[in-house]
Amino acid sequence: MSKRAKGTLVIIGGAERKDDEKTVLKVVADRIRANQRLLIVTAASYEPADTAQDYIRIFKELGVSQIDVADVRTREDAERQDLVEKCERASAIFFTGGDQLRITSQMGDSPMYQCMKQRYEDGAMIIGTSAGAAAMPFTMIVGGPSDASNRVSALSMAPGLGLLDYVVIDSHFAQRGRMGRLIGAVMQNPRNIGLGIDEATAIVVDKAERFDVVGPGAVYVVDGSQISYSSLSEDHAEGIVTVHDVRLHVLGEGDCYDLSTRRPIVAKEQPANPA
Amino acid sequence: MSKRAKGTLVIIGGAERKDDEKTVLKVVADRIRANQRLLIVTAASYEPADTAQDYIRIFKELGVSQIDVADVRTREDAERQDLVEKCERASAIFFTGGDQLRITSQMGDSPMYQCMKQRYEDGAMIIGTSAGAAAMPFTMIVGGPSDASNRVSALSMAPGLGLLDYVVIDSHFAQRGRMGRLIGAVMQNPRNIGLGIDEATAIVVDKAERFDVVGPGAVYVVDGSQISYSSLSEDHAEGIVTVHDVRLHVLGEGDCYDLSTRRPIVAKEQPANPA
Repeated sequence: MSKRAKGTLVIIGGAERKDDEKTVLKVVADRIRANQRLLIVTAASYEPADTAQDYIRIFKELGVSQIDVADVRTREDAERQDLVEKCERASAIFFTGGDQLRITSQMGDSPMYQCMKQRYEDGAMIIGTSAGAAAMPFTMIVGGPSDASNRVSALSMAPGLGLLDYVVIDSHFAQRGRMGRLIGAVMQNPRNIGLGIDEATAIVVDKAERFDVVGPGAVYVVDGSQISYSSLSEDHAEGIVTVHDVRLHVLGEGDCYDLSTRRPIVAKEQPANPA
Repeated sequence: MSKRAKGTLVIIGGAERKDDEKTVLKVVADRIRANQRLLIVTAASYEPADTAQDYIRIFKELGVSQIDVADVRTREDAERQDLVEKCERASAIFFTGGDQLRITSQMGDSPMYQCMKQRYEDGAMIIGTSAGAAAMPFTMIVGGPSDASNRVSALSMAPGLGLLDYVVIDSHFAQRGRMGRLIGAVMQNPRNIGLGIDEATAIVVDKAERFDVVGPGAVYVVDGSQISYSSLSEDHAEGIVTVHDVRLHVLGEGDCYDLSTRRPIVAKEQPANPA
């Protein structure tokens, strides 16, 4: 599915509202043209009304005039015809942060989800931050320690929205020290590239083929294709999981990564500052 | 120098006193034989007297009976003949945590340092935890953000004790999320392997040739020998440092790493549990 999609994914590492420059949200707003609609989906949020109001305020300041909200709290909500119609009208759909399992358990396979997926395949932009970012892949990380190394039993994963194949995504990456659990997620099946996205930073994925990095932080790419040894299947259920030969890239603003060749693309060199 | 050393280094990621099992300190105590002396050097510590008393208590509980303390607060202390003599008598010298610059600025090139280096070359065991761990290499990490990705200007390094060549060491690794700054340190010169050591966990380095992992956490090995691109020397002084093709190993208890071939060695498989 995702390979055929004509749309764009903007996957944000969280805390983008706290960035004074609003770099990432400006990129989103600039891609929403004058007569296009933005739909804010607060399914993940613990305080959906406040969260929606905050994003509405910010996006209006950034020049987006037509904004709808889908306050999805139950599976019944995700079947409501008025919300499906909002989905149909939207050219950009924004998933807020909170709990990624709320998104998938309330919306998975619902009419709203089917509509959103169709919109993405037809060229719409789907944006997700924090939990909304984690939920993008076919399999999502839902729990695991941020401040300890990976143990076999500590990582939990669940089926995600399935908008981007062959990846697993973690947010708040450097801020919460999540390298251990992202490596753990990649080790479970190295077909998936691990993407660790710092706060206020995003990847913009065009047609599920390549992404560009936007924002002040870094994006970590954990490539398990060359792993030569992993102790995951051995009898050390409580111990540290050993792994050899993980390949790692650290990318910053302007850098690109090709998801099909699994290779980073160097940013164009900036002209030297006349200091 | 370090290549010819006959001694052992025990490099601990900090917080080993808080480990109920005292796994790492037991390994140290077991290597100090009945009639051998341990010298505790509190040069790094902010509360040297309390720190010394705490280690004396723990090591006595672990069966070490002959313990001296070197409370080095000035360069004059590091020249005191009585402390040099304590160094000469010790078969194990333990550097506590605190500030690694206190160790090197007070002890670097002093008579105590010269004596300690000679003892190590002759076969003594040198132990360091936290700041005492960071100080072991020729160049040590002294500062840099733990909760953000690496920027060119953020990392600070300084000349270390020079007991182990071709490495840089960071402690409290997963607990403080220090992958970004360790990669940054390796990028500055990929001749150095980056070793990130979790709390209550240690590497035991024999004759500067190989190490074994001890304790409940992980040891991260960051190998920059295959880095294909780094933006470090470009004009993005305030931005994220891009790097491609870092090689990473995660090692747990019982795993080994060969410092000369730069290859991990798989732990011997445990017999399956009769479950």
